[in-house]
Amino acid sequence: MSFLPPGATIGILGGGQLGRMSALAAARLGYRCHVFAPEPDSPGMLVAAARTVAPYEDAAALAAFAGAVDVVTFEFENVPARVLEVLAPLVRCRPGVEALRICQDRLAEKRFFRSIGVPAAPWRAVHDAAELDAAIAAIGLPAVLKTTRLGYDGRGQAVLRRPEDAAAAFARLAPHPLVLEAFVPFAAEISAIAARGADGRVAVFDAVENRHSAAHILDLSFAPARVPAAAAAAARDNVRRVAEGLDLVGVVALEVFLLPDGSLLGNEIAPRPHNSGHWTLEACAASQFEQHARAVAGLPLAAAERHSDAVMRNLVGPEGMARWPALVGLPGVAPHLYGKAEARPGRKLGHATRLLPLGALARLDEAEALGGL
Amino acid sequence: MSFLPPGATIGILGGGQLGRMSALAAARLGYRCHVFAPEPDSPGMLVAAARTVAPYEDAAALAAFAGAVDVVTFEFENVPARVLEVLAPLVRCRPGVEALRICQDRLAEKRFFRSIGVPAAPWRAVHDAAELDAAIAAIGLPAVLKTTRLGYDGRGQAVLRRPEDAAAAFARLAPHPLVLEAFVPFAAEISAIAARGADGRVAVFDAVENRHSAAHILDLSFAPARVPAAAAAAARDNVRRVAEGLDLVGVVALEVFLLPDGSLLGNEIAPRPHNSGHWTLEACAASQFEQHARAVAGLPLAAAERHSDAVMRNLVGPEGMARWPALVGLPGVAPHLYGKAEARPGRKLGHATRLLPLGALARLDEAEALGGL
Repeated sequence: MSFLPPGATIGILGGGQLGRMSALAAARLGYRCHVFAPEPDSPGMLVAAARTVAPYEDAAALAAFAGAVDVVTFEFENVPARVLEVLAPLVRCRPGVEALRICQDRLAEKRFFRSIGVPAAPWRAVHDAAELDAAIAAIGLPAVLKTTRLGYDGRGQAVLRRPEDAAAAFARLAPHPLVLEAFVPFAAEISAIAARGADGRVAVFDAVENRHSAAHILDLSFAPARVPAAAAAAARDNVRRVAEGLDLVGVVALEVFLLPDGSLLGNEIAPRPHNSGHWTLEACAASQFEQHARAVAGLPLAAAERHSDAVMRNLVGPEGMARWPALVGLPGVAPHLYGKAEARPGRKLGHATRLLPLGALARLDEAEALGGL
Repeated sequence: MSFLPPGATIGILGGGQLGRMSALAAARLGYRCHVFAPEPDSPGMLVAAARTVAPYEDAAALAAFAGAVDVVTFEFENVPARVLEVLAPLVRCRPGVEALRICQDRLAEKRFFRSIGVPAAPWRAVHDAAELDAAIAAIGLPAVLKTTRLGYDGRGQAVLRRPEDAAAAFARLAPHPLVLEAFVPFAAEISAIAARGADGRVAVFDAVENRHSAAHILDLSFAPARVPAAAAAAARDNVRRVAEGLDLVGVVALEVFLLPDGSLLGNEIAPRPHNSGHWTLEACAASQFEQHARAVAGLPLAAAERHSDAVMRNLVGPEGMARWPALVGLPGVAPHLYGKAEARPGRKLGHATRLLPLGALARLDEAEALGGL
């Protein structure tokens, strides 16, 4: 298998913490990283060998970036089409254009789920008010109206409980199209992460259970998910099919809802390292970031086995930072900060992972599992 | 305890792999790193937020560096006195000037060993040919003649087997002074690493057993050392006394010889992360590099417990790089490269660590322990 030689340069589009942690992993494997992002001093740039500070619309800067690197990867899936038009003809992109196209459009994602046999909640595309009425009639209420593009952390969505909620939500969630999804009264939210190498081999991490804050931002991940074994296995099987169906080279996360009857519904795909996989940094021999770097560089993947149980908590905004002094002194906890200058509310500034002996999580209650985290 | 606030800058003098891995660990804790080294594109610079490329003699560049960072640490102990004269009045240095002074001079080191009760092989200072003759008469042959400064990886030393070896070795090992040490027919070479925080607390990693190549470069480290428990405990106790005796803030490694009778003799001190501690990156919750970053930043130290056994092999020169393609595919092995552009003979280019279950190392023969490493 041919791989990127040591010392080659991996280009990372996007300057956030996912690119930063990928860059740290790539550096360990001997690669240089070149981060392209609009913001100077972005987290990824602070650990990269080279930086380009330019808007994503700057075609000349993108072309120069393509010429300066050996492969490009993306730390977010909502890469503007124009960026891909410039980059793709000039340099290998991992993941590829088609995988990104599917993952940045909820309608394409729903159709993709159907094509690979991953069940999803009933849904309808909504282009105008009449389609919204028809969708409500077909799906029933409550339901969730979502933008098809650029939604993350609960942004770009509205829960419709009564028919009279529809008009205001439709107006607020411009630009259209939108998608109406049946409201899922889920028992747990699970995610699973797969890495797929350039040789087509897939390595799947254990499924985890996620808990979100009131602001719809990930708060806690429990690894492994405390759910029936069949559900965890199904989540892992689903993300494997996603990775293969996308013909992905890199890492992909699949969020699924676990229903009270034990079945799963696919929710969202993220073709990149994912917040719910940060625990792999300490609890696995090779993290999701290392797997991503390996895949992007054409190296063989490492095993995705977990040597410990883990609980991960995000540090969000000023309240998150207020916990830092205590966290750095907590035994058995690995604290991480991303180097962001401002602790704005709602901003993901870091995370901390508590390691537990293999199998311990299933025996502990929540307070014991957190242990002050 | 007051510590360096997130986003503060740690200055690292020296651009090699020890600074690089320290910078990666410091980044994880939310710090920026600024690397000062004479060589552009040095390994540490490739992962640092800021770089200064200037000779160590450039006082103006050093002063500017001191002004740009919140604390300075060193990835090698042979820091020229002039550098410390410029830096120390301007910025906090960890370790401090006195610790560096002792560790960069074998005579000061021997006297320090004596002062803290760490036994060492018989030795004599040698300033001229007459002193060398007297030292040989006192210590006997074989003996090892060493420069007092700038020796590493077996450089700057000569084994004297017969009286007639003395004159040539004395001439070759200029500049003087030198030190003559009794030749120690050791059973094993052990090292132990301690971290000491700004609050004076000490955390000691398990002692390891080291094997060197014919070129006197570290080849293998086995963690834990396969030696009697009393010897391992003594090595750890010795390095704790070294850390406290140096009033060190940071990480310090102590190399000791294990004699056939089970006793230990102190050999060398390195007041920094050490090649024989690279295994801590995978086998401990917090590595020697994280401990170093924590100490330098004034954060509390993490626990130094080992959750796995480990074997580390250095990748040296072109032969080392030739093993890379196989190593990246070896299950259970974490490969590291330092980003050095040229694979010159004798150059440390990377390392790889194989993790084994806790307690496994004692039960395996050497080939099994290496497992293809």
